[in-house]
Amino acid sequence: MVIIVKQHTSPDELRQVIQPLEWLGLEVSVTQGIGHTVLGLLGDVSCVDVERFLSLPQVETVMEVPEPYKKANRKFHPQDTAVQVGGAHIGGGGFSVIAGPCSVESPGQVTEIARQVQQAGASFLRGGAFKPRTSPYAFQGMGEQALEWLEEAKAVTGLPIVSELTNPKYCDCFEEKVDVIQIGARNMQNFDLLREVGKMSKPVLLKRGLSNTYEEWILSAEYILAQGNEQVILCERGIRTMESYTRNTLDISAVPAIRKMSHLPVVVDPSHACGKSWMVEPLALAAAAVGADGLMVEVHNDPAHAKCDGQQSLTPMQFREMMEKVNHVVEAIGKRGTVGRITRLEPRKEGNGCLKKCL
Amino acid sequence: MVIIVKQHTSPDELRQVIQPLEWLGLEVSVTQGIGHTVLGLLGDVSCVDVERFLSLPQVETVMEVPEPYKKANRKFHPQDTAVQVGGAHIGGGGFSVIAGPCSVESPGQVTEIARQVQQAGASFLRGGAFKPRTSPYAFQGMGEQALEWLEEAKAVTGLPIVSELTNPKYCDCFEEKVDVIQIGARNMQNFDLLREVGKMSKPVLLKRGLSNTYEEWILSAEYILAQGNEQVILCERGIRTMESYTRNTLDISAVPAIRKMSHLPVVVDPSHACGKSWMVEPLALAAAAVGADGLMVEVHNDPAHAKCDGQQSLTPMQFREMMEKVNHVVEAIGKRGTVGRITRLEPRKEGNGCLKKCL
Amino acid sequence: MVIIVKQHTSPDELRQVIQPLEWLGLEVSVTQGIGHTVLGLLGDVSCVDVERFLSLPQVETVMEVPEPYKKANRKFHPQDTAVQVGGAHIGGGGFSVIAGPCSVESPGQVTEIARQVQQAGASFLRGGAFKPRTSPYAFQGMGEQALEWLEEAKAVTGLPIVSELTNPKYCDCFEEKVDVIQIGARNMQNFDLLREVGKMSKPVLLKRGLSNTYEEWILSAEYILAQGNEQVILCERGIRTMESYTRNTLDISAVPAIRKMSHLPVVVDPSHACGKSWMVEPLALAAAAVGADGLMVEVHNDPAHAKCDGQQSLTPMQFREMMEKVNHVVEAIGKRGTVGRITRLEPRKEGNGCLKKCL
Amino acid sequence: MVIIVKQHTSPDELRQVIQPLEWLGLEVSVTQGIGHTVLGLLGDVSCVDVERFLSLPQVETVMEVPEPYKKANRKFHPQDTAVQVGGAHIGGGGFSVIAGPCSVESPGQVTEIARQVQQAGASFLRGGAFKPRTSPYAFQGMGEQALEWLEEAKAVTGLPIVSELTNPKYCDCFEEKVDVIQIGARNMQNFDLLREVGKMSKPVLLKRGLSNTYEEWILSAEYILAQGNEQVILCERGIRTMESYTRNTLDISAVPAIRKMSHLPVVVDPSHACGKSWMVEPLALAAAAVGADGLMVEVHNDPAHAKCDGQQSLTPMQFREMMEKVNHVVEAIGKRGTVGRITRLEPRKEGNGCLKKCL
Repeated sequence: MVIIVKQHTSPDELRQVIQPLEWLGLEVSVTQGIGHTVLGLLGDVSCVDVERFLSLPQVETVMEVPEPYKKANRKFHPQDTAVQVGGAHIGGGGFSVIAGPCSVESPGQVTEIARQVQQAGASFLRGGAFKPRTSPYAFQGMGEQALEWLEEAKAVTGLPIVSELTNPKYCDCFEEKVDVIQIGARNMQNFDLLREVGKMSKPVLLKRGLSNTYEEWILSAEYILAQGNEQVILCERGIRTMESYTRNTLDISAVPAIRKMSHLPVVVDPSHACGKSWMVEPLALAAAAVGADGLMVEVHNDPAHAKCDGQQSLTPMQFREMMEKVNHVVEAIGKRGTVGRITRLEPRKEGNGCLKKCL
Repeated sequence: MVIIVKQHTSPDELRQVIQPLEWLGLEVSVTQGIGHTVLGLLGDVSCVDVERFLSLPQVETVMEVPEPYKKANRKFHPQDTAVQVGGAHIGGGGFSVIAGPCSVESPGQVTEIARQVQQAGASFLRGGAFKPRTSPYAFQGMGEQALEWLEEAKAVTGLPIVSELTNPKYCDCFEEKVDVIQIGARNMQNFDLLREVGKMSKPVLLKRGLSNTYEEWILSAEYILAQGNEQVILCERGIRTMESYTRNTLDISAVPAIRKMSHLPVVVDPSHACGKSWMVEPLALAAAAVGADGLMVEVHNDPAHAKCDGQQSLTPMQFREMMEKVNHVVEAIGKRGTVGRITRLEPRKEGNGCLKKCL
Repeated sequence: MVIIVKQHTSPDELRQVIQPLEWLGLEVSVTQGIGHTVLGLLGDVSCVDVERFLSLPQVETVMEVPEPYKKANRKFHPQDTAVQVGGAHIGGGGFSVIAGPCSVESPGQVTEIARQVQQAGASFLRGGAFKPRTSPYAFQGMGEQALEWLEEAKAVTGLPIVSELTNPKYCDCFEEKVDVIQIGARNMQNFDLLREVGKMSKPVLLKRGLSNTYEEWILSAEYILAQGNEQVILCERGIRTMESYTRNTLDISAVPAIRKMSHLPVVVDPSHACGKSWMVEPLALAAAAVGADGLMVEVHNDPAHAKCDGQQSLTPMQFREMMEKVNHVVEAIGKRGTVGRITRLEPRKEGNGCLKKCL
Repeated sequence: MVIIVKQHTSPDELRQVIQPLEWLGLEVSVTQGIGHTVLGLLGDVSCVDVERFLSLPQVETVMEVPEPYKKANRKFHPQDTAVQVGGAHIGGGGFSVIAGPCSVESPGQVTEIARQVQQAGASFLRGGAFKPRTSPYAFQGMGEQALEWLEEAKAVTGLPIVSELTNPKYCDCFEEKVDVIQIGARNMQNFDLLREVGKMSKPVLLKRGLSNTYEEWILSAEYILAQGNEQVILCERGIRTMESYTRNTLDISAVPAIRKMSHLPVVVDPSHACGKSWMVEPLALAAAAVGADGLMVEVHNDPAHAKCDGQQSLTPMQFREMMEKVNHVVEAIGKRGTVGRITRLEPRKEGNGCLKKCL
């Protein structure tokens, strides 16, 4: 339930509305809107006497919110949320690209990839340090060491770091070293972990679960918001269906659906969705056209020898080509200057050749 | 299995390759490629002595085709197939839009919608005459009468007609009156019907089944091709998943996948995929960006009173707005002049106001 | 909407209720229940003045039926429907087993299998004559000839024949030669075919579609019932999910769900559900325990060389062993004498050895 | 890869096989089988020279294990694993029932339910203390206090306690107070949590994820086994499909599939699978018939007022009736004395009437 309080209501008058709600055992979240103040009531609202509140002079209206999510609900917060990280941002009208290797493998690797994706227009660097793997015998990531290598890459490029957290015990470490905390698909309903990142000061990128509905996904975001961390980015990465040609089935409709249901930004991960490097570009273009706030793309200097997910990684060159096309589509749907500027390559000095030498 | 025969092979030399294959009980389909001739072998190829054929001087190479589809296989027919209908076409580089009401309801209605979608850039008119409905008590379409009304709309606008066939007994009627035969999702594996339309001279638009894989879909196309009708258009219209917010889940990856696997054109039906009119536009933009050969969109003059699927139909005005944006995306990915030209509206004479008066 | 008319209402009084309903354009189906008569109203019931009908002395009550299916609805027809075929039956408390080869391959084959499954307790013989196959190049069945071979097997054993119909053009032939018309999963929503079998005098076994809900399945049955054929058996055969270890996922809950929603009998096909012969027995036991009205099981004399679906076929010996266990479970849940009597084998004369010799 | 060492091999000769494997960086797990010793090789086995090991006199054979799971693999460990807890057990031939409330709500409640389910034949008590809920605003369980109430119930009845763990921080507490650690469906791929319970001394009941394959599920068990905890019970609780009539779709085939693939016991939770109390009994019978090692069933003294999942809970009376039928089916498939003995009720003193008075 939401109570809309009129413009020019004094703090004292506002308190007269809030206090009886708190007596009823409700938590009241106050949001200053344009021309009015929105009070979100969390808890059992069946006890609220709607007529009584409607009769207060400072109350404009009382709205039922049939959806079980409140803080993430667009009805309750009509403006787009933009998540700011240093100079970069996701949401609020732009189009931002997160790129980097599935897994951080060595310090040289990640810094070189960071430089290349930055030149191609990415504004965030992704890199896995702790990898949740289906098999206990598969490569599980380089751990804390990898976070240090990501910090070196950030020192060189300035790109903020996105990395996945899988265990509450690393919260302090991620709070210090990582700019955006990623929660993976397999942990989307690890509610204890969600509560922990809800207490952190860093934005959270929340991937959709393998087989979760939009509502369940937003409710998982609500776990984070309810703890006070309001900087949540949703990431569509494909769902499980009977089709096995692609690794997962990209649910492109999730983007307009989430934008209707919630004010939180939503990005698309075409790499995990399809699992095939040659299909990443067309899916990235579709994501740009459908109105996503950005992309998360796997880029690897040597996909054939990547420690994981090589078959779905782009080379830096393929990524650059994709970014040029993505830019055209972003402009075609009327967004401007949103992708990070693409630096012009000087043919003899850069490219894959250099990369191989550097590493 | 495919045998590639060298350029400049005489008809006699070609016959020396084909004859022993036919003796083995195989059906041989001959396709003239650029610089070579392709022989497609249908039947049990386990008896073919590959070495023996490789040793023939006129044979360039012999390729295994692990996929069970042959005629629809891109390996076997690398060029895109373009389906021509009068002046209009689908596939082969363009972007073509099929639009019209889910169900034809009255003669005035369909002609007026046809004029409006044509002015907005559509190059085909869709309209249901025989409607397959989940319930026997739901509106089942106006039947043969509706085909006549579609013909009137075609007489006025010149737009070729796309309409769904559900029963072999109407084949003759459709052969005469309809330009593109639609096979609906629920009949995708109605193999007897596929065989029948395979004998017709009209192109076939084959929708993907509710829960069918890419391979099964192409194999259903193969049923049609194998009967001699090589003009098949595939139409992605969403699959069934656990997500119930949308009517179906649009599998946008189907477009690049089909383009990789087959040479047949592939279009997207965003209307049935999402079931919500407000979501049709973003999905149409995604389809344009991902590389589809066109769209199939439901347009109704009065969605609130449509006899079926009103909640997913665009008004002619919404369709026009969508088409302008689609055009920008089509150009952004480097296709040109592909959508039918959008006629400039003269504000006072046209539009919904007029439409309501006319009907 | 359903109108319950009191016991001891004269035909004239009944007509006084029905006539105004027909004037309203409704179709009225009359069912004689125990202690009352049930009028089922088909069509747009929004025009019915419920109060007016309630005020008639012969009317007991008027019930809304929120489900879109009427004739198949248990609310409307609380007693179980039992489908009778000669001396055999399905539904109404028993447990009946349909068994035989996926595809009829030769006359000797099917008669021999028929004898063996009969001795093991089956009361119906299944055998495919027209096989709907995913690929146009796969074996498509022996056609009408196979129906004659089935008739020979029936002449020897007396077992009624269950065979799949895929095309309306064979309706007359099936009406004459087949005892139970099977509609396959891929034709569950081939509404034109459903209407045709609705006009036939033979019972219909309707398989669930690959990805259809219970309600859609019952609505497809309703297409048949609405044409006057009230002898419909539903057959659960597994649905499509993300699990690929089994061919399909047997939805065992379909049995209690259908029994709650409808009065029609429901049987289980474990062979197509799992696609693995070793898993047929445990699934058959589960089907017996969950309360199904019977089974449909593939049995082949030589699974390794079957023309289709050999990997999921039982040998006659495996079938006999399964039947003994099924019988124990059927008795354990309180059904008696339901499976056809199992004939005692005399070891030296029968069994697979003989079968091989015979064929 | 698995190396089978001959019977009567001395420890020294065994060491001659193991040592070179360890030099290759492999972990070797040794299992004493009947008539031979099995060495399971974990790690990158591509470096193993198979011929060389085959030539050793004490080696019987070397087997490739194509499945990615080793310790959970039946090929590697052909005997059924039976998990022992005090006098009770799951697996190894019996049929054991875990029953109790979804969520522990008060001390009196859980003790009374425990007594009743014990008298009806249950041999384990389930009760949720920490409830993972989709919404952050839903009841989250009574926490550690609930564990104490479960201990009281155990003190009265002797039933071992099964309760769900969601956070590594409670491992010590569960190690002390709980007999079987449950990992819920949403945490099936919370690999960090799996590793933690792999280090505990208590058996683990691992539920299948909402949309996970059999192989992924066994691999999650492998995470636990690989840490040294070999007492894992798998629990099928329904998967997500397009059918929404039931809460989930019970995949009954999982039971024979898991029994083929692994030696670990597998039980079925019909309550979460269907979400409807009236459907629990038929599904429980199906689970017994299909060969499951047991059941996990929700029982609540007052389902209408349960704090969660009341609509799927049985009353103690309904549970008793179900258990009697389950017993008949268990016996019908040839298992004996497997369900805990059902105590005869003395009508005047027990039953729901008493329960209401007690609470």
